[in-house]
Amino acid sequence: MAGVRCDISMSLDGFAAGPNPSLEKPLGEGGDLLHEWAFAAASWRESHGLSGGEANADSEVLEESVRTTGAVVMGRRMFSGGEGPWGPDPRARGWWGEDPPFHVPVFVLTHHDRETLVMEGGTSFEFVTDGIEAALERAKAAAGDKDVLLAGGASIVQQYLKAGLLDELQIHVAPVLLGEGTSLFDRLGIEPVGLEATRVIASPSVTHLRFRVPGRVT
Amino acid sequence: MAGVRCDISMSLDGFAAGPNPSLEKPLGEGGDLLHEWAFAAASWRESHGLSGGEANADSEVLEESVRTTGAVVMGRRMFSGGEGPWGPDPRARGWWGEDPPFHVPVFVLTHHDRETLVMEGGTSFEFVTDGIEAALERAKAAAGDKDVLLAGGASIVQQYLKAGLLDELQIHVAPVLLGEGTSLFDRLGIEPVGLEATRVIASPSVTHLRFRVPGRVT
Repeated sequence: MAGVRCDISMSLDGFAAGPNPSLEKPLGEGGDLLHEWAFAAASWRESHGLSGGEANADSEVLEESVRTTGAVVMGRRMFSGGEGPWGPDPRARGWWGEDPPFHVPVFVLTHHDRETLVMEGGTSFEFVTDGIEAALERAKAAAGDKDVLLAGGASIVQQYLKAGLLDELQIHVAPVLLGEGTSLFDRLGIEPVGLEATRVIASPSVTHLRFRVPGRVT
Repeated sequence: MAGVRCDISMSLDGFAAGPNPSLEKPLGEGGDLLHEWAFAAASWRESHGLSGGEANADSEVLEESVRTTGAVVMGRRMFSGGEGPWGPDPRARGWWGEDPPFHVPVFVLTHHDRETLVMEGGTSFEFVTDGIEAALERAKAAAGDKDVLLAGGASIVQQYLKAGLLDELQIHVAPVLLGEGTSLFDRLGIEPVGLEATRVIASPSVTHLRFRVPGRVT
């Protein structure tokens, strides 16, 4: 059954990005450490137009994620970095060059309307200004019988989770303490809620924890 | 090789206890959800003088922890709950009754000196007022060739980690979002540090993640 899934890397101390993100270091200081497992995986390298890498369990988890994803939702900062008082750069075309690694429609939550960017390789960036539910509706329509992937950042994941719109969480726990940064869950301020642990896949580089979220997050 | 190990349960959103701990709910609101896996395990029940429970993988992890622990270090709040301006209750004998589940010497970090409490079943509580290093030294001497276990709470774990005195972390990740509470790692304010992931044991109730901490936490 298609659903809404979050697939995101997190440090053991709960950060989805390091402190002080910048144009040079979009993942913040130490943030690359969260994704080393992905950078080393053959499937990640392939989806980013690179060769090599390891065909290991981590690579299979990423392949599965790509295979089951029909559309992506992400925040504006993930699309093009920090936002100044002048609003986003209207020339921004994302971090990923002309052939981004998504290969499906990507819906970018923003306050600034903009025409859809059609990139190479099947990726398009559509800008949604009327909220998380509208973005999800459009993403679901685009995804067909596949999942909608919430790619991040942390505040987007939190918003969908608190709205009860998230069906599955896949957290890639990296063996690192960042000490500071953007907390993935922060203090959600919800009632305690039990998740259904559906799968664990471990490698020396990362532990992939998968959970089903009940419909009663309040 | 004997070392200093932390063995502690954590919610997926990083809390080691729920909010608003009280005498009635020492683990805070929802905090019991972090330990359901332990409550259900045969070895936990046995060490607490109860019968029944499941002899499953979780139970084996606990058995191993008991078998390899020669002494325990814990904070004053873990020993006897919240601390008022009047200092701790000098009559307090811990949460666990006359036969506590430790069965080894326990060193309690506190600002209030007190005579050692000798309990039943091999547990003693010794009160240490001269800091975390002194407590560790005494615990190591008592532990012989076994590990020193840091039992918590969160601030004790943070202090030892930042002092570079922690060799191993075993985090029992419970499939629950607490939304609020006492953050296990909080914002440590250290430089990002990679850990060595040494073991993952998963059950439907909990994922046991084990890491070796390098000697260079700064």
